[in-house]
Amino acid sequence: MNQRLKNAAHWLNDQNINLAFVNSTANVYYFSSFYCQPHERLLGLFLFPDKDPILVCPAMESSQARDAGWKYGIIDYNDSENPWEKVKSQLHEHNGNKADAIAIEREQLNYARSMELQSIYPEAEITDFEACANQLRVVKDEKELQILREAAELADFGVEVGISALAEGKSEVEIIAEIEYELKKKGVSGMSFSTMVLFGDKSALPHGKPGDRTLKSGDMVLFDLGVVYKGYCSDITRTVAYKSMNDNQKEIYNIVKDAQQKALDMSKPGTRIGDLDKVARDYITEKGYGEYFLHRIGHGLGIEVHEYPSMSDTNNEAMQEGMVYTLEPGVYVPGIGGVRIEDDVVVTKDGYETLTKFSKELLIIE
Amino acid sequence: MNQRLKNAAHWLNDQNINLAFVNSTANVYYFSSFYCQPHERLLGLFLFPDKDPILVCPAMESSQARDAGWKYGIIDYNDSENPWEKVKSQLHEHNGNKADAIAIEREQLNYARSMELQSIYPEAEITDFEACANQLRVVKDEKELQILREAAELADFGVEVGISALAEGKSEVEIIAEIEYELKKKGVSGMSFSTMVLFGDKSALPHGKPGDRTLKSGDMVLFDLGVVYKGYCSDITRTVAYKSMNDNQKEIYNIVKDAQQKALDMSKPGTRIGDLDKVARDYITEKGYGEYFLHRIGHGLGIEVHEYPSMSDTNNEAMQEGMVYTLEPGVYVPGIGGVRIEDDVVVTKDGYETLTKFSKELLIIE
Repeated sequence: MNQRLKNAAHWLNDQNINLAFVNSTANVYYFSSFYCQPHERLLGLFLFPDKDPILVCPAMESSQARDAGWKYGIIDYNDSENPWEKVKSQLHEHNGNKADAIAIEREQLNYARSMELQSIYPEAEITDFEACANQLRVVKDEKELQILREAAELADFGVEVGISALAEGKSEVEIIAEIEYELKKKGVSGMSFSTMVLFGDKSALPHGKPGDRTLKSGDMVLFDLGVVYKGYCSDITRTVAYKSMNDNQKEIYNIVKDAQQKALDMSKPGTRIGDLDKVARDYITEKGYGEYFLHRIGHGLGIEVHEYPSMSDTNNEAMQEGMVYTLEPGVYVPGIGGVRIEDDVVVTKDGYETLTKFSKELLIIE
Repeated sequence: MNQRLKNAAHWLNDQNINLAFVNSTANVYYFSSFYCQPHERLLGLFLFPDKDPILVCPAMESSQARDAGWKYGIIDYNDSENPWEKVKSQLHEHNGNKADAIAIEREQLNYARSMELQSIYPEAEITDFEACANQLRVVKDEKELQILREAAELADFGVEVGISALAEGKSEVEIIAEIEYELKKKGVSGMSFSTMVLFGDKSALPHGKPGDRTLKSGDMVLFDLGVVYKGYCSDITRTVAYKSMNDNQKEIYNIVKDAQQKALDMSKPGTRIGDLDKVARDYITEKGYGEYFLHRIGHGLGIEVHEYPSMSDTNNEAMQEGMVYTLEPGVYVPGIGGVRIEDDVVVTKDGYETLTKFSKELLIIE
């Protein structure tokens, strides 16, 4: 068994849990190296404290699971079969027909599937597996960090392409098309979320939708993008000005940049996670823009673009070496524009390293 | 209230259900016209048999909900708040603190959220809302059909771009980059799934992953792609040959094409859905390739690229006018290659209309 599967088995053993069912694409990938987006079809891993794991997947995916290196049992099914009937008989055969406790992904497993599991082991208590998966996934090993560095480098490149593509009269979606074209040509398997390029007033919407708004002189331009590369995500935001920038916009830019630097400076093992949001928020508030910083400072980053831990001010956990997350303070003032600056960051032994490296100097594009 | 919300309220009233919680992006969009991908944050609609609905969403999204036309109550929250505390007090205030029955999306609501709801109304029976949403969404109105036609036209265009881009030595991912670039320039907000372009042997994997395999003479080329346009999806597959095609490949191509035509011919109101899969599968089996048709013949199509109904041979429901779905038989023979042909289809008053129109004649690209 690989070390990740062994870690899960040890955890189940320590917790006296008879089996875990893992069905999110991300956790299945983490434990099995098999990446599969099954849409509505059932995909999952059954993990045990003292037995080999079992994969359940659509029949047409099973050869790809083998190609990804899966060596253990597979319960496969075709579209006219009910996979749960097969699961039930094979689980009972592999692990007996009694279980006291079953661990699930509470925030990933849907209600219908939780009921199917409960009907297989009606006496079992349902408990949480996400705490285990989160604690394992939160610390990235050197191989993961290397991929995350490459993913971040591709995100930097995406911003570079976007800035080079800016021209009066071009639309937000045209710039997006050029960014994604160049990234796909470099072999990225997909974007980690819908690429965002917002001009002018629209930059003041933290989750605005790009459209056919065209670029004009004096616009702020916000880029928020990331790639999926070898199964891992990146996520970068940069805000630039096109041709000119007024003093108020410059003031906001510098406040956001300084707020982010304050959070970066606190990035080291042992810091309370919530303090990163707090230090940036306090600074922005002191400068008079607190009401315009509408979201938490960031989120964990890895196989998923948003993953554990949440970098919100209420998070009392301590930072650990190997944790990867975004720091992305933003100030969004209707009528003036929005500025967000986001980097991907890893906690090192005694500080931090930013994975995204694109310049944060105030750029006025000519 | 719009007609969709009224329909849901009537259904809740008929079923004696006190409230429904709808949290999938697709159903929230269907009922509210507000499209929001909230990642791990809580988004949802509370629907009642006899009261105005309530939306719950992140604070930074609420202005976009208003812009999308949402006129009713909003429970919004920021990243440091627990939205469920606000939900509880506002639900109790709006609808009392007792409920006998709550309807949820059984296959969309996660276990943790189902527990939150149950803690708000501990005595309530949990029942299914998906049957209601599915029955409403399955019949598309003329406005939806018009958008689906446009989305399908963009998918046709994507295949055209892909075929024009084929050239010896180009890789699968390069062709994908060109297809998506041209589509995004036309304003599509995204692809409805990861675009698939597979060359040669790789076309024999129904869910293969495109990579840096380069095109050579004699390859089969499989395109499977779709766009999201004005909130609706398209999905097309075409298979062509590059420079040459052997007799066995031609035989397979014609079998798949004829099998699809047989399923199309049965597309009309009243047909048992499963019979479309059956007629195509029987034909392919009769021709000796039954073991290589590895999946159901199709799936419902609309706001989601895979939605209700499943077009599998076990589906005993009857087709209705306005139903939109894919028909995509495929034969995948290792060592020879795969052929899949997929159209988006709508059931009309007395037959069908294909929304995707790209030629299905056997094409050998020079």
